[in-house]
Amino acid sequence: MHKPAAKSIICYNLVMKNRHETKTAIGMMSGTSVDGIDACFVRICGDFSFEILKTHSIGYPAEISEKILAAANNKADTELICKLNFVLGRLFGRCANELIAKTGQKPDFIASHGQTVFHAPKTAEISGINANSTLQIGDISVIAQETGVTTVGNFRARDIAAGGQGAPLVPFADEMIFKKEIPRAIQNIGGISNVTVLSPNCETFAFDIGPGNMLIDYFVKKFFNKPFDKDGEIALSGKIDENWLNELLKEPYYAEFPPKTTGRELFNDEYAQKILKFAPENKNDVIATITALTAKTIAEAYKKFVFPKTEIKEIVLGGGGVYNKAVIAGLKRYLPGIEIKKHADFGINDKYKEALAFAMLGYCTLERIENNLPACTGAKMPVVMGEIAYSG
Amino acid sequence: MHKPAAKSIICYNLVMKNRHETKTAIGMMSGTSVDGIDACFVRICGDFSFEILKTHSIGYPAEISEKILAAANNKADTELICKLNFVLGRLFGRCANELIAKTGQKPDFIASHGQTVFHAPKTAEISGINANSTLQIGDISVIAQETGVTTVGNFRARDIAAGGQGAPLVPFADEMIFKKEIPRAIQNIGGISNVTVLSPNCETFAFDIGPGNMLIDYFVKKFFNKPFDKDGEIALSGKIDENWLNELLKEPYYAEFPPKTTGRELFNDEYAQKILKFAPENKNDVIATITALTAKTIAEAYKKFVFPKTEIKEIVLGGGGVYNKAVIAGLKRYLPGIEIKKHADFGINDKYKEALAFAMLGYCTLERIENNLPACTGAKMPVVMGEIAYSG
Repeated sequence: MHKPAAKSIICYNLVMKNRHETKTAIGMMSGTSVDGIDACFVRICGDFSFEILKTHSIGYPAEISEKILAAANNKADTELICKLNFVLGRLFGRCANELIAKTGQKPDFIASHGQTVFHAPKTAEISGINANSTLQIGDISVIAQETGVTTVGNFRARDIAAGGQGAPLVPFADEMIFKKEIPRAIQNIGGISNVTVLSPNCETFAFDIGPGNMLIDYFVKKFFNKPFDKDGEIALSGKIDENWLNELLKEPYYAEFPPKTTGRELFNDEYAQKILKFAPENKNDVIATITALTAKTIAEAYKKFVFPKTEIKEIVLGGGGVYNKAVIAGLKRYLPGIEIKKHADFGINDKYKEALAFAMLGYCTLERIENNLPACTGAKMPVVMGEIAYSG
Repeated sequence: MHKPAAKSIICYNLVMKNRHETKTAIGMMSGTSVDGIDACFVRICGDFSFEILKTHSIGYPAEISEKILAAANNKADTELICKLNFVLGRLFGRCANELIAKTGQKPDFIASHGQTVFHAPKTAEISGINANSTLQIGDISVIAQETGVTTVGNFRARDIAAGGQGAPLVPFADEMIFKKEIPRAIQNIGGISNVTVLSPNCETFAFDIGPGNMLIDYFVKKFFNKPFDKDGEIALSGKIDENWLNELLKEPYYAEFPPKTTGRELFNDEYAQKILKFAPENKNDVIATITALTAKTIAEAYKKFVFPKTEIKEIVLGGGGVYNKAVIAGLKRYLPGIEIKKHADFGINDKYKEALAFAMLGYCTLERIENNLPACTGAKMPVVMGEIAYSG
């Protein structure tokens, strides 16, 4: 079981408020890949030490995935949104029930992120009224009814209502999971790479750095017809083209100051085609260089935006990039002296990290503890995110 | 202040559970006419006696009404639903804040029905998964953030998740408002007429009877170019054509056994045009007869579906039909010996009755008291409807 850090600000507040109740929870997440639901059954203590008891995943039926993607591409009508909201509630409920059967007990509560189908957190208005908004579906009343367990969800709405971007929310859980006793970078390398900086020297902050696996996967698919560079073997067999790498580093996004977010609206197939024009001829060198870009953008971001605020003793890697030895070699080369760890070193399977994070956010909702980090989301104030449907 | 009935089943449960806390609340309703929001500030005691302190209404800006109607006509995309959900949250919040200013105090909680944009409670499925659903927008997290008051909403979802139709929900509040000490019919005459039967002799039940003001308004508009028959004067100047009336009573819906619901999908302009073929020539006689139809369908429904279960001592009228003297005369003629009262006789302004009802439903959500009536909604069990967003 994870032991809490004595210095954690959150734990301190918690102790001050005399809230020590241990609760069991199911956390559930369905990400933007829209392939299904990941869930974990966890025991959370009042000091935020925790233990994951079981995990479970289910896939969406093909027709459901298609309809969610249609909705996410703004091609749903009112009826489809209305029905999908309940259908997903039934599926989240089913996933939770299967995990309850596997664990052999009902949890005290369920926390569900829901399925995002729209996210418009900035400068929207209708008739002069603020319309900044987000939409996660999978109704919590349906989950509560299906499972007979009190269910918390719809977390992002409150942060947006409070002037934030409703994201990122995981850094709050990172604080609870990893504590702030030594300065750490929780470095996720998914399609996009993003970091949460946890340090006793500064407020927790987080931002999107740049392409994680996205450009690597694109070129590996194009030149080698493989879905990804297994263990970074292709990259390790090539040579880094320093000229092309320097060209790539001129992307203006990398120089922007945090808080900042990016995604497939910038680093997409079109972007890959554009940068390919100046690439080396050797295909392995392309992969070696574009893999070095992932590592170098992370290192540069630390130097520009992190080190002025705090040193970093440890990097804790998460996401698919964990398995790419060329990325790890790059990080060691560009950030010498910093220890590199993985989530597994902390007993956490990354696949269920977000599910765990939402279980912790839900714990706070029920205890009425503020659970957004304004420094990360841009909210005007700390708020209690999450809506509650009682079991009965 | 209303005093509770000693025999009320709900009050009895409440006393048994030792829950006596008096709370103040704002209830808010926006109906299918999509013209704005009605709100009331009410004090509710643990025995469900209550006192309305202030009321308030705001209109929707024209652009918002148009967009809600587009959504309700299934002509919204994901983006519009996402944004409207938050914009309406801001507007509900504004309405509540204005009422708070008027009353000079913050309530303990807000209960908001939200704005219905879709309601598909029956036999829907996607990929073999139950898709019965309903969609009320006006996010409760936004209302809680705007007002700083704990907000309850999204009531209908849980009843549908429990196999019900998510409607009618007001009969539960009728039980609390009017009690069950003597047998009463709470008779609403809006566009459609519907009744809640409250009696110590039977379980509370409710159903839609038939056309309320809908057909009267259609013919008054057509023949007299007025929006409605003020005080029933036109009807009172005409003669009832008994032959046509008997023809009209053959509508098969009237013979169907409750629970049953109807609406503009049956009693619409097309229906009016169809029945007009056999109408008397004198226009005043048309209005007299169609007004008699409203009264007679109510009386017949009582005889067929209510009196076999319980006698009725009082009818408590609500809705626009209250002001139509010809309708009231008809009820007295067809239901001799039953006293006819109005909501005003119980200190309630009907305009705010639904807002009051949702305040009472929200009180139960927070106290975890089951607040649907399965006999009315068809749900498989009593459930705690409503989702909660904390003030902080």
